[in-house]
Amino acid sequence: MGPHPAVAAIRLAVRRVLHDLLTEHHRAPAAVAHALPRELPPSSRLPSSREVPPPPPLVLVACSGGADSMALASALAFEAPKLGITAGGVTVDHGLQPGSDLRAAEVVQRLRELGLDPVDSVAVTVGRNGGPEAAARDARYAALDTAAERHGAAAVLLGHTRDDQAETVLLGLARGSGIRSLSGMAAVSGAGGRYRRPFLGLDRQTARKACMVQSLPVWDDPHNADPAYTRSRLRHEGLPALEKALGKGVVEALARTAQLSRDDADALDSWASQAEAGVRDAAGLLECAKLYALPPAVRRRVLRRAAIEAGAPAGSLFARHIEEIDRLITGWRGQGAINLPGKVVARRQGGRLVIRQG
Amino acid sequence: MGPHPAVAAIRLAVRRVLHDLLTEHHRAPAAVAHALPRELPPSSRLPSSREVPPPPPLVLVACSGGADSMALASALAFEAPKLGITAGGVTVDHGLQPGSDLRAAEVVQRLRELGLDPVDSVAVTVGRNGGPEAAARDARYAALDTAAERHGAAAVLLGHTRDDQAETVLLGLARGSGIRSLSGMAAVSGAGGRYRRPFLGLDRQTARKACMVQSLPVWDDPHNADPAYTRSRLRHEGLPALEKALGKGVVEALARTAQLSRDDADALDSWASQAEAGVRDAAGLLECAKLYALPPAVRRRVLRRAAIEAGAPAGSLFARHIEEIDRLITGWRGQGAINLPGKVVARRQGGRLVIRQG
Repeated sequence: MGPHPAVAAIRLAVRRVLHDLLTEHHRAPAAVAHALPRELPPSSRLPSSREVPPPPPLVLVACSGGADSMALASALAFEAPKLGITAGGVTVDHGLQPGSDLRAAEVVQRLRELGLDPVDSVAVTVGRNGGPEAAARDARYAALDTAAERHGAAAVLLGHTRDDQAETVLLGLARGSGIRSLSGMAAVSGAGGRYRRPFLGLDRQTARKACMVQSLPVWDDPHNADPAYTRSRLRHEGLPALEKALGKGVVEALARTAQLSRDDADALDSWASQAEAGVRDAAGLLECAKLYALPPAVRRRVLRRAAIEAGAPAGSLFARHIEEIDRLITGWRGQGAINLPGKVVARRQGGRLVIRQG
Repeated sequence: MGPHPAVAAIRLAVRRVLHDLLTEHHRAPAAVAHALPRELPPSSRLPSSREVPPPPPLVLVACSGGADSMALASALAFEAPKLGITAGGVTVDHGLQPGSDLRAAEVVQRLRELGLDPVDSVAVTVGRNGGPEAAARDARYAALDTAAERHGAAAVLLGHTRDDQAETVLLGLARGSGIRSLSGMAAVSGAGGRYRRPFLGLDRQTARKACMVQSLPVWDDPHNADPAYTRSRLRHEGLPALEKALGKGVVEALARTAQLSRDDADALDSWASQAEAGVRDAAGLLECAKLYALPPAVRRRVLRRAAIEAGAPAGSLFARHIEEIDRLITGWRGQGAINLPGKVVARRQGGRLVIRQG
């Protein structure tokens, strides 16, 4: 008898990602091996330092003790050894609730019981930048980066599910800043593609079920149900109401929107990056007439790139800023300089768009 | 004392659209006039038939008797005469409720009282294609098209507000079929840009307020509050819950998303249309290797275009169909032919992608 369908689903999702990682891990040395002359008999191929296979990679799971990441840890513990991968884990103690250190210790023990090794608990101090959720996230990823580097991990798996993805898309939608903010979380992200999200196509219910049938105790973070948090309100009120109005397929539709938007945003970014060179004059200034000829979607991206290059912080540059710069091109009626975040100023001078600091 | 801010807002919105229409209306003859030699004194420029200004344009308002379109009618009645534009109205009797003919007659009378002329009431028969809302919409636009042509109208104004736009974006989001479906309603649409939506940037509350302060009686369509309709559920439950979770700016953010998505989708469509020629071989077949080299967002659009060109109905072609065709390019492992709507079949043959009917 095979495993429960939920367990099969989480394992398959992890197996796919581990396969990808192995392929990437072996790609460079394999290419070297294949480049050797085929005519030589195997015995004549002396082992060279370039041919020694790299040590088995280490893959870490980031685990809060919640259902999603516990399910992920269990699937990693099951799949990794079969592929010659070492599986470890990290839990981050955000120190935001009393007893969070004890909980972290408990998660460490559960991960060890699953057979993971090494297992780390990392305590962080959460700042206040960008609100409580963003600050906790920043602290968490910094800690995971450090842990990954300390252990020389090939990847860190994250337990985000399709439901998390749907919430992220709606959060991006609320910013109203275009399709990049609709593209949610990437399956692969971080420096060198360190972070992998095997469960982005899986629903939260499956992860929870997989924990249940494997008798894995899970911890429900009270923050997840705290209406003081935007994401929690979205999860418990916003999304259910949207599903009631639009039907049960909403979560899947939002997740699909994320993927499509990401690809679209990537393509348009690459277009803008190519177009940018073509709209500059010999002195490197942006020519208004050439900008005017670009499709609005591409022009706006070129303007955004130019503003960021001039020193405007990407995070404070909103759609309305770009629209205002755009009107220097498309609705020119002699308007004055436009002030942008980061003390950057955009003005039109003699048919050129000048964007610079101060 | 100027008008109430709500009245000022609706009039400004309409005035802008009427200005656009006048500019378009006069553009061709004006261009002819400007092409005349500048050296000749005005008196020597004999009137020619090409210089005779066209008759004042007629602009119709589509009016259900609801607050949005009554506000629109009142603003059109006020602004049009000042610009030498003739203002008329049309109301469509969908025949879906008992007494709808009497209501239509009442709307006609109200439009006449505003000074509109001509004013038509058009009775339509609503079919069942695509669900009750789509069927009513199809019947309505067909009737408006006919009315516009009968009167030789330059444009038909529609009362959709920013709130309607936000709902349309969410309805598109629920389809999960990409950014085109997030782009909502266009400010200008229909054959020759016939339909104009002056209120897309205005909220519903402003339209309602403008009716109130002008003592215009409005009719509340019971369909708008009927939870059997998706849009009504969205309006009365989905969007308010989303606003509660994400904050009051959601409607504005959704409307901005519509505009940005529309521009992005337009740019990518134009890229795909250009790319398509470059990926066909001498016989006009799609070359898999060249398709592979395109950005995924562009490739998917090329594939969609090819499927539609081969006879697949655009409305039945979903993201998952395109993904399946795409795997013939990006995940080729000898899979068989793929069946698409409209009896269209896609298969890979000798490095070519063959998409055809039957």
